[in-house]
Amino acid sequence: MNVTILNIGDELLIGQVVNTNAAKMSQMLTQAGMAVKGVYTIGDLSEDIGNYLRHCLSVSDVVLMTGGLGPTKDDITKKTLCEFFGSELYENEEALENVRRIVASHGRELTEINRLQAWVPRCCTMINNVLGTAPCMWFETDDCPSKVVVSLPGVPFEMENLMQTEVVPRLREHFAVGAIVNKNLLLHGIGESFLSDLIEPWELALPENIRLAYLPQPGLMKLRLTARGDDSARLQHQIDEAVAGLYPIAGQYIMGEDAESLPELVARTMVASGRTLATAESCTGGNIAAKLTALPGASAYFRGGVVAYSNEVKESELGVRHETLVRHGAVSEETVREMVTGARERLGADYAVATTGVAGPSGGTPEKPVGTVWIAVASADGVSTELLHLTGRRAQIVERTCNAVFAALLRVVRPQ
Amino acid sequence: MNVTILNIGDELLIGQVVNTNAAKMSQMLTQAGMAVKGVYTIGDLSEDIGNYLRHCLSVSDVVLMTGGLGPTKDDITKKTLCEFFGSELYENEEALENVRRIVASHGRELTEINRLQAWVPRCCTMINNVLGTAPCMWFETDDCPSKVVVSLPGVPFEMENLMQTEVVPRLREHFAVGAIVNKNLLLHGIGESFLSDLIEPWELALPENIRLAYLPQPGLMKLRLTARGDDSARLQHQIDEAVAGLYPIAGQYIMGEDAESLPELVARTMVASGRTLATAESCTGGNIAAKLTALPGASAYFRGGVVAYSNEVKESELGVRHETLVRHGAVSEETVREMVTGARERLGADYAVATTGVAGPSGGTPEKPVGTVWIAVASADGVSTELLHLTGRRAQIVERTCNAVFAALLRVVRPQ
Repeated sequence: MNVTILNIGDELLIGQVVNTNAAKMSQMLTQAGMAVKGVYTIGDLSEDIGNYLRHCLSVSDVVLMTGGLGPTKDDITKKTLCEFFGSELYENEEALENVRRIVASHGRELTEINRLQAWVPRCCTMINNVLGTAPCMWFETDDCPSKVVVSLPGVPFEMENLMQTEVVPRLREHFAVGAIVNKNLLLHGIGESFLSDLIEPWELALPENIRLAYLPQPGLMKLRLTARGDDSARLQHQIDEAVAGLYPIAGQYIMGEDAESLPELVARTMVASGRTLATAESCTGGNIAAKLTALPGASAYFRGGVVAYSNEVKESELGVRHETLVRHGAVSEETVREMVTGARERLGADYAVATTGVAGPSGGTPEKPVGTVWIAVASADGVSTELLHLTGRRAQIVERTCNAVFAALLRVVRPQ
Repeated sequence: MNVTILNIGDELLIGQVVNTNAAKMSQMLTQAGMAVKGVYTIGDLSEDIGNYLRHCLSVSDVVLMTGGLGPTKDDITKKTLCEFFGSELYENEEALENVRRIVASHGRELTEINRLQAWVPRCCTMINNVLGTAPCMWFETDDCPSKVVVSLPGVPFEMENLMQTEVVPRLREHFAVGAIVNKNLLLHGIGESFLSDLIEPWELALPENIRLAYLPQPGLMKLRLTARGDDSARLQHQIDEAVAGLYPIAGQYIMGEDAESLPELVARTMVASGRTLATAESCTGGNIAAKLTALPGASAYFRGGVVAYSNEVKESELGVRHETLVRHGAVSEETVREMVTGARERLGADYAVATTGVAGPSGGTPEKPVGTVWIAVASADGVSTELLHLTGRRAQIVERTCNAVFAALLRVVRPQ
């Protein structure tokens, strides 16, 4: 059973918007045991929409469409779907009630344009979109028995909520997709080929119904175990056993389970510890703080930080000694040590982290080439430092440094 | 003349990687006067690659493929291209020289696997990829006269460099695409519908060969003028005249020209002014600093900042008075004023910016609902503040706040 994704929108074809919906949908489908065969992005052209819908139905069991559901003149998906399925639009009561509720919650009056949002093809099953005014529509057709077409709004958080709560569960039921249990592990400090050699015997001994996927990111490795079968409880038990078997082999690299990113693990760990954190960033320029505060609830543990981009700010705000900077340079173990100590003390936190390095593209020297980065973690027990030699471009060096800092912090906060 | 993009890679179909290549390529092609008809993402399956290549050639003049060019076993694009064009692989001297140079620059020996990268189909024109080991390949075929297939590496910065320096210019020449001149304007402080009403008479009076596109982003409007014709100098003159005509109508909203983002304009303006900047961020949590330091050379003007997420840090690091926080709350004009003043003085900068607000999803109150944000700019001439009422989710509120801060700073640094 497989799926094609059809993303509609002129804004995608001129490169104004990056198509993040495709990745998110693919992720959700894959984890729910459904394979994505292809992703097609096309413009708001009725003829193209019809043609590609026909093509997608010919190569896959399910077509998930996004976009083109607004009331403005470009948005022709609903009309095209009516033509395609030989149906006509009608005003759906439940959809209208939803539109009314959302418009009222913004303190506005219902307009004729709002009202148009509640019109859907008579032949579809309307799925209510509680987060927005454009309803989701589920189509089945006699021409292609058992095949399904679903039209979703293109607004990312509306699409995501509908996929999670409605579309994925309904697809799993419709196609009787068997039980599936996933487990994500985040690993740090080992590259793909070393890891693959290290865990090969364990991988070969996995039950046949468990599949392992390597999902590398800059400075981070995600492993995903997927178990398929009939009985969820049994699959969960199999997964738990498999994971338990991995710890004796690679436990030192495993930063945590069931998270998409290291900041998620940091948040979870810090909140559980009841302790607080401060940051002192030079080469990461605020990215560590930004990544931590991107997750709601960061104020429970994150006190704040200093972006000490210039040497003067390292001195005035973090108490790095002028002599240290002159003697050892800004990118040195001595400097990062004073930065992290200053951040912890001045910001009154239980833990602090610090970064200083050469992110490039310029600023490198023969002794300290681009990618030379010092990081540090401070706690009541003292300071630990680490020297990184990173490759890549500016953004990747920053990304890898952030992940190295999160991993180092996790190792200090919850020692194995 | 139109183009389809064929992105190849299993990692795209499981949602591990967001397809940013498609957006970047679409952007570059659109600006070079070539229309993108569709984007197809498929897996590393030889059969699919062949089928979709055939399909893309049937609906468009050019097919740009990315991905599948590595030497590992998943990467079957080169073999498939040989089958498709009835050709065979051979070791290309220039490509080998390039691989040798890159491998040597990493201080490594040339391996057999490296060497495989230099093999290309005999029927293609090899285009050297100076940034990576996988060469770019340009195909023309008698079956489809005048049509072109180009295979590019999937690594974003390699693809981007090849597109810019080689592929786009060659396509323009091959298809004799006429002269094209683009002009981007960044506007802040006015919504799409108000702007469209305001500038309608100007837009209607534009020469017929100039097209206007609205490219909205969170808290920012990009306008793109595109002139097409035969004579670049004449087009440039037309564009200059059109832009000059826009300033009397909407000049107060125009933040700058020829930039992709407000941080670019901030960097340009600050460097030109010879002055320095400091930041004090609460609700933006380090994002302002991170966006500024994402651009190389930020150290020329950016001294650093304080992420004052907790009230204690607002007091200790920025000198916000305890009484101010108690009386007016963290989200108040009084607090943002003391934050920005503290940042400017303590970090020793000519200018400072500050943010404090409720980014959500929780933390809102009836008087200060989610989206209530105070921003401030400080200079030698004093402090200006602004109250924002933003909508959207956490990430969008942060994004809109950042853009409002950059716009406010630009207005202060270079008064109209």
